[in-house]
Amino acid sequence: MQWVKVLGGVVGAAALLGLGIIVGHFAIPKGADSPAPSASASQDLDLKILETVIEQLDANRIRENLRELSKEPHLATTPRDEALVQLLLQRWQDPESGLDSARTTEYEVLLSFPSGEQPNRVAVVNSTGAILFSCRHSEENLTGEQGGPNVVPPYAAYAPPGTPQGPLVYANQGSEEDFKELQNKGVKLQDSIVLTRYGGVGRGAKAVNAAKYGVAGVLVYTDPKDINDGKSLPNETFPHSWCLPPSGVERGSYFEYFGDPLTPYLPATPSSFRLNSDNASGFPPIPIQPIGFEDAQVLLCNLGGNLAPADWQGGLGCDYNLGPGFRSNGIFPEDGQVNVSVHNRLELRNSSNVLGIIRGAVEPDRYVLYGNHRDSWVHGAVDPSTGTAVLLELSRVLGTLLKKGTWRPRRSIVFASWGAEEFGLIGSTEFTEVSEPRSWALEGIPGAGRAGLTWSGRLQEFFRKLQERAVAYINVDISVFANASLRVQGTPPIQSVVFSAAKQISAPGSSGLSIYDNWIRYYNRSSSVYGLVPSVGTLGAGSDYAPFIHFLGISSMDIAYTYDRSKTSARIYPTYHTAFDTFDYVDKFLDPGFSSHQAVARTAGSVLLRLSDSLFLPLNVSDYSETLRSFLQAAEDLRVLLEQHSISLGPLVTAVERFEGAATVFNQRIATLREGTPDPLQVRMINDQLMLLERTFLNSQAFPEERYYSHVLWAPRTGSVATFPGLSNAYSQAKNTGHEPAAWAEVQRQLSIVVAALEGAAATLRPVADL
Amino acid sequence: MQWVKVLGGVVGAAALLGLGIIVGHFAIPKGADSPAPSASASQDLDLKILETVIEQLDANRIRENLRELSKEPHLATTPRDEALVQLLLQRWQDPESGLDSARTTEYEVLLSFPSGEQPNRVAVVNSTGAILFSCRHSEENLTGEQGGPNVVPPYAAYAPPGTPQGPLVYANQGSEEDFKELQNKGVKLQDSIVLTRYGGVGRGAKAVNAAKYGVAGVLVYTDPKDINDGKSLPNETFPHSWCLPPSGVERGSYFEYFGDPLTPYLPATPSSFRLNSDNASGFPPIPIQPIGFEDAQVLLCNLGGNLAPADWQGGLGCDYNLGPGFRSNGIFPEDGQVNVSVHNRLELRNSSNVLGIIRGAVEPDRYVLYGNHRDSWVHGAVDPSTGTAVLLELSRVLGTLLKKGTWRPRRSIVFASWGAEEFGLIGSTEFTEVSEPRSWALEGIPGAGRAGLTWSGRLQEFFRKLQERAVAYINVDISVFANASLRVQGTPPIQSVVFSAAKQISAPGSSGLSIYDNWIRYYNRSSSVYGLVPSVGTLGAGSDYAPFIHFLGISSMDIAYTYDRSKTSARIYPTYHTAFDTFDYVDKFLDPGFSSHQAVARTAGSVLLRLSDSLFLPLNVSDYSETLRSFLQAAEDLRVLLEQHSISLGPLVTAVERFEGAATVFNQRIATLREGTPDPLQVRMINDQLMLLERTFLNSQAFPEERYYSHVLWAPRTGSVATFPGLSNAYSQAKNTGHEPAAWAEVQRQLSIVVAALEGAAATLRPVADL
Repeated sequence: MQWVKVLGGVVGAAALLGLGIIVGHFAIPKGADSPAPSASASQDLDLKILETVIEQLDANRIRENLRELSKEPHLATTPRDEALVQLLLQRWQDPESGLDSARTTEYEVLLSFPSGEQPNRVAVVNSTGAILFSCRHSEENLTGEQGGPNVVPPYAAYAPPGTPQGPLVYANQGSEEDFKELQNKGVKLQDSIVLTRYGGVGRGAKAVNAAKYGVAGVLVYTDPKDINDGKSLPNETFPHSWCLPPSGVERGSYFEYFGDPLTPYLPATPSSFRLNSDNASGFPPIPIQPIGFEDAQVLLCNLGGNLAPADWQGGLGCDYNLGPGFRSNGIFPEDGQVNVSVHNRLELRNSSNVLGIIRGAVEPDRYVLYGNHRDSWVHGAVDPSTGTAVLLELSRVLGTLLKKGTWRPRRSIVFASWGAEEFGLIGSTEFTEVSEPRSWALEGIPGAGRAGLTWSGRLQEFFRKLQERAVAYINVDISVFANASLRVQGTPPIQSVVFSAAKQISAPGSSGLSIYDNWIRYYNRSSSVYGLVPSVGTLGAGSDYAPFIHFLGISSMDIAYTYDRSKTSARIYPTYHTAFDTFDYVDKFLDPGFSSHQAVARTAGSVLLRLSDSLFLPLNVSDYSETLRSFLQAAEDLRVLLEQHSISLGPLVTAVERFEGAATVFNQRIATLREGTPDPLQVRMINDQLMLLERTFLNSQAFPEERYYSHVLWAPRTGSVATFPGLSNAYSQAKNTGHEPAAWAEVQRQLSIVVAALEGAAATLRPVADL
Repeated sequence: MQWVKVLGGVVGAAALLGLGIIVGHFAIPKGADSPAPSASASQDLDLKILETVIEQLDANRIRENLRELSKEPHLATTPRDEALVQLLLQRWQDPESGLDSARTTEYEVLLSFPSGEQPNRVAVVNSTGAILFSCRHSEENLTGEQGGPNVVPPYAAYAPPGTPQGPLVYANQGSEEDFKELQNKGVKLQDSIVLTRYGGVGRGAKAVNAAKYGVAGVLVYTDPKDINDGKSLPNETFPHSWCLPPSGVERGSYFEYFGDPLTPYLPATPSSFRLNSDNASGFPPIPIQPIGFEDAQVLLCNLGGNLAPADWQGGLGCDYNLGPGFRSNGIFPEDGQVNVSVHNRLELRNSSNVLGIIRGAVEPDRYVLYGNHRDSWVHGAVDPSTGTAVLLELSRVLGTLLKKGTWRPRRSIVFASWGAEEFGLIGSTEFTEVSEPRSWALEGIPGAGRAGLTWSGRLQEFFRKLQERAVAYINVDISVFANASLRVQGTPPIQSVVFSAAKQISAPGSSGLSIYDNWIRYYNRSSSVYGLVPSVGTLGAGSDYAPFIHFLGISSMDIAYTYDRSKTSARIYPTYHTAFDTFDYVDKFLDPGFSSHQAVARTAGSVLLRLSDSLFLPLNVSDYSETLRSFLQAAEDLRVLLEQHSISLGPLVTAVERFEGAATVFNQRIATLREGTPDPLQVRMINDQLMLLERTFLNSQAFPEERYYSHVLWAPRTGSVATFPGLSNAYSQAKNTGHEPAAWAEVQRQLSIVVAALEGAAATLRPVADL
């Protein structure tokens, strides 16, 4: 198939690059970090420039970007993905609107694809093995875009090959509780095939949970109740509405970690140490395959056994039974079985990130990062191209000001287009690892990059540089889910800068409200400090911010426009990860006129400029106090049982108080400095404290079993109590084991880790000369 | 006994402190880090101040410091140790010659002491159990100082209690090879007691190795051949010469790691998570007890069995046989056995560090650290008081200039007196861990500290602050081993600043040479860059620099005056860790006149001032290139076998070249900037690169089994090839296992880790705007 050819081409290019690297190695870097002559070390954010940027961000240009980006499928490492790499380079090297420099960095990473020769197959067979029914191999060609040769058939990336067969069981969302319930009801799971709905737990978890009960294979589908507010008929779904058509199938990665599966903690360079893929962990243990609800209906509505519980029922227009096996009066024989044939293959592929840099005038060694992934499952108009379309428009506006000589930021700005996010945040994660020896630089000499004249070999390392120098990371992946309201996820220090930006910009539509005032109508909370404010969500691991916040401790955020939740309960926009996520889908249903795109561009652009140009970094460390208070309050529910095991919450209470006190005093110091005329080194010292606060919450010893997670406030929480995740999880574990001393010792260890982190955070905010 | 009382007192004090902390929590820190008004951000090192400091460092004051410090035994956490804490606080709070502030930080750590009621005992018994001979319980009272109640009897700290008995075997130094050789010779080791000499391997390793062969107990002694250049008679040893008297016994810690044994990676606060001491690792597995060579002679010269190999023979004036058991014509029956009774106890004790701070005028958030431990085994005149005497004189001279208003450093200076070093670098290691909630501040208001008026509760955290802000760590533990030459251990970037300092100061004695020119006569190497230069040694884990370099990646050094190796082959100064290490020993034999002490004070003082006051940090990153080259050269010896296992050295070669290139270009940039008038932020950015280079060599994933070690260049090397330690060790392991694929995979992993670190180091030296 195609893949082999592509690989060959990339290897050839790599050899040329290797030569370039050797040649370039001896080139002395240009004096690229001397400040521009006019830069003043005391210059603050220029509000006129900010206004200019906001005005120039153009909805129609975003629309045109989106049309170009989504005109063909661009699955990671395919030719179209590589073509988009070139498109980004070209834009960022444009003599009129480009950046100072742009380059790609390449990694050799393990991806998973369906076999070209043997399609994955889901079929109902009778007792002699004859096929009675087959699920579709691909989505229906409704708009002419679903039938192309580059549309990857639906599959579960990283699911192992295999051809399990067995009686069918309905397992709801495939959570641990769901399987426990089936077991309690006496439904035989051993050697069965289970059908599950998307939602509730992660993709991979459905297979992991199933395997524990001896299940042989898993199917997963999207229920109309969960995605279409119940709509399921062809004439009420896309292209007639934004709803998911019956044949639509959500693709996705079923890998349980993030980053390249073979090189955890090491950059996936060609010469790097690699795990043997048999030893790599995090892949689904049994075959799993996604199908559309059209096919799921045939299977589920013919299932026998007892009626499933009320909250397991869905929108397929029939009663959902549990199985095992088919009902007596259905279209299949009662002993009919489901056969799942998965032929996925693991392949090492070259995936590129593209980086575009604007050199800071005063503090070039401080980086404000702004990124999104480039790769999609199919056309990926919404995911990720609504984000990339915004990214390109924002970099165009800033690049134009830069090239005209009107503006240069105080700090460096780094734009990034990540590769292979859909397979597990691979490009962004490799970027944060220790080093990366296959990259090259394209200096910003007009035209020279395209002429191939100035490619200079340059090795880059990011882990330490980012740890020492990164101010914040802004992620705009899907920029528009819907048109109702801004939606921001992030760590507390970014709340204030987002609020400032959102207050200054008008919301789309005729309300006359600012983005902030519109936002507060849809998503709000009552803050003990500020009263009613928009609610900023927490960061999980759903997009490329994950390695930045969890592994590197860089204050991060994700910005988008989203739903009116009173109007839809869709789990996500309905065509997510299907072949129906196309330009027309966005243009007709998601954001006609592109005003929500523009609103996101303006908000994210304003945040970016504030972070790069403000004299004092606009991060408010005091806003962590509310989070810590709420975690502490939740921890109070644990007090009785903790004390029974001689574990005191006292040190935690003290630590939270100390943080609050230190943050308050620190903010007072900034206010006092602002009133005077602080010298540049004083400002730098304060900004270093602001920048590095988030790092103080990292502890690489905290979660030895969680790859990359080391942020003691935002690591995954499985315990039910909404407190510090390590404490919550260990407590939950200890409670389940009863009086196991080792489990309670782990609770004490986790508590000590949190206390140490909070004390540490407070200490770094104190006057620096106090040590 | 005494200990219980002391503990009670400390607990009471802690309660008061707790109150103080609560009170002080609400006090807003004084604006302690605003630069002094006269400070100029472009001010460079003032050579006149430097000369003044060097001149004012007074040999006689150092002598008087030493007399006071060593007048009584000050074992960690004993009353005299606490009294010295007060002495240090008093000096550093002196209104005429003190620092800006001083305070203590306290940890609750696990120490090991001999039982007060049941002395440890080593005896020869006959077959009925009757005692035929007993080793001394304490050293002979030769100068009136060995008989005091506070002289701790000789013991092996952390050796488990037990009373093993068995036939005696001589096991040389107790190395793995030694035991293998005994086994090869058919000497029965099971259930034996082995007698070993100090040297060759670490203390604890002797017991670890012995236990693998079923040995029941271990004795260890210091052979006159190894310590006294053969001398062993009472009239040729102390107090008649510097040699070790026959009854002298080296005490020491037998703990295999460093830091508090119960709280690895966590600060040893009272509320911290603690391992159960039964689960703690790193303690000797079997009882072990040190004895003097007077007693060892009785045992060893009566041993039976075959003659030990030539290089196992020593200076006790008889043939050393191997055993097992006694010879037929000796003073013991052939079936006489040795009974070892060890009654050591583990105890949680409060140990203090003392910190004294001079606030930086321009960059208070950059710390130059200078430290030594305070605790000794007995009087500890040499170890550690020769270092502390210098520390106090240096802080007096700088404090005086400070209080007079003559001088304030550009960066902050932190003086430290560590507690419980002798038990395993405990005070310094806890200081580097994540947080430390039992400390308090004593502001530098004249007299107020002593009056108890300004104690303000203050929690401190050091790990992150040090990681982000520490420029370098200077350790001066034993400052004078002997009078011949300077001796410096450190990482390459500190070579140049030490050379600059040493060139400027006259060596003691009448040679007229500088310290540098004298040094080069004794210890030198041929550098490919500089020609013949003094050789700077590497840093192991012998003193408090270990956590700074290995755990935190802070450029570190250890400075002392030392031997003419052509005149003595003593393993260390002879009374090391014995009750004969007294003031008179130093005053009469080690450094009469204290000119070597003064030389060390001047050298270390000059280095400290250069690091704190130079505009550009005087760290030369290019000096790492020579080390990397030599490691690479050594790695070439592995090439053939590596390639047989498909492991290429190519990426390593490239990485070393890249580092060299980046360091050279970086130094050129500094030179160019120096010629102009760089603005303060440009200097700061360069200095950040200089300061943080050493951090780039850390990888917390590199050595999962080595507690705290994460520096990929200086972790312990057990492999025989003098290359990168991880590579050397993994190679050696893989070679021994033959063709075990997992072992060769580990070689590739270690190689990838080194390559990533070097690429990373090179990248952080490149122009910062390049990302």
